[in-house]
Amino acid sequence: SRELFVLTYGALVAQLCKEYEKDEDVNACLDRMGYSIGIRLIDDFLARSAVKKCRSYSETADVIAQVAFKMYLGVTPSVSCSSATGNEFSLILDKNPLVDFVEELPAERASLCYCNLLCGVIRGALEMVHLAAEVSFLQDRLKGDAVTEIGITFLRKPEDRKNRRN
Amino acid sequence: SRELFVLTYGALVAQLCKEYEKDEDVNACLDRMGYSIGIRLIDDFLARSAVKKCRSYSETADVIAQVAFKMYLGVTPSVSCSSATGNEFSLILDKNPLVDFVEELPAERASLCYCNLLCGVIRGALEMVHLAAEVSFLQDRLKGDAVTEIGITFLRKPEDRKNRRN
Repeated sequence: SRELFVLTYGALVAQLCKEYEKDEDVNACLDRMGYSIGIRLIDDFLARSAVKKCRSYSETADVIAQVAFKMYLGVTPSVSCSSATGNEFSLILDKNPLVDFVEELPAERASLCYCNLLCGVIRGALEMVHLAAEVSFLQDRLKGDAVTEIGITFLRKPEDRKNRRN
Repeated sequence: SRELFVLTYGALVAQLCKEYEKDEDVNACLDRMGYSIGIRLIDDFLARSAVKKCRSYSETADVIAQVAFKMYLGVTPSVSCSSATGNEFSLILDKNPLVDFVEELPAERASLCYCNLLCGVIRGALEMVHLAAEVSFLQDRLKGDAVTEIGITFLRKPEDRKNRRN
């Protein structure tokens, strides 16, 4: 049952909003917290999911959406590749269980990324399997967008960059 | 899957420990947050559990342990009545999933009730069904006790007290 989690998450965000005046600071704090969670959650994920090593960014994005989101949030976002270079992906959530009890953001919190913890979790977990990535919200239904969209940009490894230059 | 919840709860407690120097202040804050969660969670609980109105404190304590704890934390504490007056109960947890990732409390946080949110949740939820109660940790494995024990004292209703006096 997710409700206790969802309400506890709301209490965490509310606490950070009390503490930090600027939305950017709340967002950064949620991302940092998520990162710390992600680097620990990955062990649990690998042990229980029994997924094998992914052989492409695309496969990794699919595993995040279909296995990890399903396991921890009970929803399965759809995945789309949003770049010709094949390293940028979007997870599209029609329904975001983390905001179940949130009606809308207060006017003075218009820049808050309420679920930014999730970005940090994904970033932290990926880093532990040696994948550097930037993760951020591109759209958010809480801000009036039609869907909630999390963007994942896998960062090329140094050796990739070197090879390219040659 | 509870791990994301458990780690997020840990991040919340860590954040409050950053903010408040005194354990008592962290405990009070967790209790307040839990209360706010409890008064909202009760609707979800009543809707999904379909439990009927309890006819005694003892039945209420059993429902908290066997239905609510099972539903939201996946564990079932044992219940014992600890007073001759029949209004004091203990929930005994052999295993507390909320502390899965906590090894021990730091020495300078010896008075922290790490899971105090749960007390607030129970208190808030009970209040919404018109039961006033005091809820607190009596024992805690995190503090070296053999079990974790949550004490619930149902407070007599004003009319009860009046009748007694007559």
